[in-house]
Amino acid sequence: MTATCDLSLVEAAGALARGEITAGDLVVSCLDRVTARQSTLNAFIDVRREQALTAAARSNAERRRKRNPSRLSGIPLAHKDMFFRAGEVSTCGSRILTGHRPTVTATVLERLDAAGALDLGTLHMSEFALGPAGQNAHFGHCRNPHDPDRISGGSSSGPGAAVAAGMVFGALGSDTAGSIRLPAAICGVVGLKPTNGRLSLYGAMPLSASLDTVGVLARRVADCAWLFDAIAGPDNRDPGCTAVPHRPCAPSAIPGSLSGLRIGRPVDYYFDGLDDDVAEITGSALDTLSHLGAECVEVNIPEHEPIADAASIIITCEAAALHAEWLATRPEDYGVPVRERIEAGFGHSAPDYLRVLSDRGHRVRRIAEHVFGLCDVVVAPVLDIGVPTIAEVDVAGGPDSLRTISRLNRKTRTINYLGFPALAVPAGRDARGMPVAVQFIGRPYDESLLFRVAAAFEDARAFSGVPVSA
Amino acid sequence: MTATCDLSLVEAAGALARGEITAGDLVVSCLDRVTARQSTLNAFIDVRREQALTAAARSNAERRRKRNPSRLSGIPLAHKDMFFRAGEVSTCGSRILTGHRPTVTATVLERLDAAGALDLGTLHMSEFALGPAGQNAHFGHCRNPHDPDRISGGSSSGPGAAVAAGMVFGALGSDTAGSIRLPAAICGVVGLKPTNGRLSLYGAMPLSASLDTVGVLARRVADCAWLFDAIAGPDNRDPGCTAVPHRPCAPSAIPGSLSGLRIGRPVDYYFDGLDDDVAEITGSALDTLSHLGAECVEVNIPEHEPIADAASIIITCEAAALHAEWLATRPEDYGVPVRERIEAGFGHSAPDYLRVLSDRGHRVRRIAEHVFGLCDVVVAPVLDIGVPTIAEVDVAGGPDSLRTISRLNRKTRTINYLGFPALAVPAGRDARGMPVAVQFIGRPYDESLLFRVAAAFEDARAFSGVPVSA
Repeated sequence: MTATCDLSLVEAAGALARGEITAGDLVVSCLDRVTARQSTLNAFIDVRREQALTAAARSNAERRRKRNPSRLSGIPLAHKDMFFRAGEVSTCGSRILTGHRPTVTATVLERLDAAGALDLGTLHMSEFALGPAGQNAHFGHCRNPHDPDRISGGSSSGPGAAVAAGMVFGALGSDTAGSIRLPAAICGVVGLKPTNGRLSLYGAMPLSASLDTVGVLARRVADCAWLFDAIAGPDNRDPGCTAVPHRPCAPSAIPGSLSGLRIGRPVDYYFDGLDDDVAEITGSALDTLSHLGAECVEVNIPEHEPIADAASIIITCEAAALHAEWLATRPEDYGVPVRERIEAGFGHSAPDYLRVLSDRGHRVRRIAEHVFGLCDVVVAPVLDIGVPTIAEVDVAGGPDSLRTISRLNRKTRTINYLGFPALAVPAGRDARGMPVAVQFIGRPYDESLLFRVAAAFEDARAFSGVPVSA
Repeated sequence: MTATCDLSLVEAAGALARGEITAGDLVVSCLDRVTARQSTLNAFIDVRREQALTAAARSNAERRRKRNPSRLSGIPLAHKDMFFRAGEVSTCGSRILTGHRPTVTATVLERLDAAGALDLGTLHMSEFALGPAGQNAHFGHCRNPHDPDRISGGSSSGPGAAVAAGMVFGALGSDTAGSIRLPAAICGVVGLKPTNGRLSLYGAMPLSASLDTVGVLARRVADCAWLFDAIAGPDNRDPGCTAVPHRPCAPSAIPGSLSGLRIGRPVDYYFDGLDDDVAEITGSALDTLSHLGAECVEVNIPEHEPIADAASIIITCEAAALHAEWLATRPEDYGVPVRERIEAGFGHSAPDYLRVLSDRGHRVRRIAEHVFGLCDVVVAPVLDIGVPTIAEVDVAGGPDSLRTISRLNRKTRTINYLGFPALAVPAGRDARGMPVAVQFIGRPYDESLLFRVAAAFEDARAFSGVPVSA
């Protein structure tokens, strides 16, 4: 029998609505799972048990009073430890911010609170959201629920592992170069990196204002759509998130035929250098989409290398500006690889940075017109390799480890420069039983179509989330 | 008798409205003045006589047909050669852009066109708007109508000289560090640097996106208010100019009592190191404002030196990014001091630039609250020295010349960082008969109050514009 905490978010909400379970039941089931697996997985930084139980009791009482509670009312979540909540500690995975209590609350948290969702605590992350593997010099590794010797992926390591392990039904993460899609793919859950500018960044730790996005992870496509619908929409407190109104995605996230849709298979780069299992599973995913009625077409996504370089310049320069004060006064409080990565920003002149930034608008428009003239949704692998072991990405391991680390976000980071939405979805298991995912990449602001395609895909593959409970 | 071309813009518009003169008369009078003085002053880069005469004839015909022609209908203007007009050459004062024909028209030009204003051609400017003196290695010096051995000021050199000499009734200029206020002050006309973001920059040559403003020069305060009213207002094509609607300033620009207003006299910096004549005339200007009923209070405008440094970093970095391609491929096509000034941008790292930029918002809010808590309008000199001779700012003249050049924008450039509106207004003549000006500095988006104070001041001083006709 499926444990309560292993239900999908949508299933849990249904059971709540029908009165079969209470928010308290959900919280207790999730906290039991945390108790069972936290010592192995290290997915939480801070478990807020009492707060969660109190909130659950309040949620139960509210549900008895209200006629139409919100869809997320009483659903246990937890979030990457970089979404600020006024007065509560937010470490951002760092030693620098030990005991840091922000004075503001992130817009996306406020919206989840308003929707009645519960918050079980703060989740593990790479220090300051830098690092694709889920390592952390201060808080220890976050481990993969499918094999604790293997990485969780990062930087939203805790969200990936906690959602996969059934500790929570969904989580907020952030994605500046792949930090949602990687842990989602590696832990075998669904992860949305929305269009840049779609979700408010207010009250989320900044890393690189030009490339940062916040997004959601959950076990099923529809779960992600529900979470996304609850937090999307303009926010005057984030000047980059004021323009495009949000229309709910979830109603259209009903599986169905994909007839009339053109699915793009990149002919260059994205299918280069894939491990055999990854290549086979990705090919099979494309077959599934064809069987669902989509027309598969070949596309090229041009200028990959210059865009990867540009993205790297933008991240390091913007991160270095944000960290300059601490780098000067507290260098020893950083993990060494994180500090070195940030310091690289000082190697770029201001005019070089500004040119990279000013080229972006034209280039993105040109590429978007080209790619989405040829197809409606691109399908690509998230990783080109299987999930590495923690030993394989140990920074003390020399050049081999560094090469493995640098391969992790090769297929994700250019999408942040391009600003397109991308949804990572489980697509199968490799010979070791580890998850392999594909990402659906869409037109700016068309998350809705990604959810529709992914839901149909998920349904067809009967890939039932991640039954990884202990 | 005053020549037609020496009327104020408002007077000329009145004579047109009453049918006493035609647009053709105005254009002919202005072109006669150009013929008389262009060879001495070099205020125009390109005089477009035939186009202007044709447009005047059309304007005459239109006036006969229409019941309510626009206030600017038939008024001869000309603009700094950096406001693009699709298909027409715009040199930006450079050799690099010889024969450059933009494909777009600047929003501010479109709005003047729509108001029926006439365009006599393109005006002199410092190369790429860099340089406070009005020198130009490619087009020669622009000279001061009051004494052709002296500088016109820059970078809106042509607008200052042409308006002062009666060649046109008004002109568009740009001000990134003082480039409107300096030639206005030095040539003895009125010049508005509006609030940053108030006027659309679309189709104007960019120099430093963070500090650029476009504005207007004319012989009288009300003339400037009319021009400003015609071009102000949000513009979707300039993302920095979309927020604040414009309410016309001109109706309130009627001289009157200043009772109830607090006029701030800076106690630090702005009154340091003034030449005797400048100090005396500025003091006398404050007396006039007191006599008009204003309360004079002391204010300090803090952090002047760090802001001056920050402004310099921003300009050079942003200019270097825009010019990087040409600097690499055509260095010899720049005037040497202009090239050296731009190249300095490469000496700043991207994180340092970004930190300067990110400090700005808080600092500006803090200073604005402080200063405009103490007073409504600040009065300060525009220059701390009298108008130099062209020989005194010859770049071949060594350290003395460089020192003089660097003194020119000392009292103007920090205002662009702060983003406040500032209006330069003639305040008297020094012992050599050269103009001395004050600048009125106001709250963001409160140009209206500046016009009101300046109009009362102008009226009280009976300073009748600039009768400098040959």
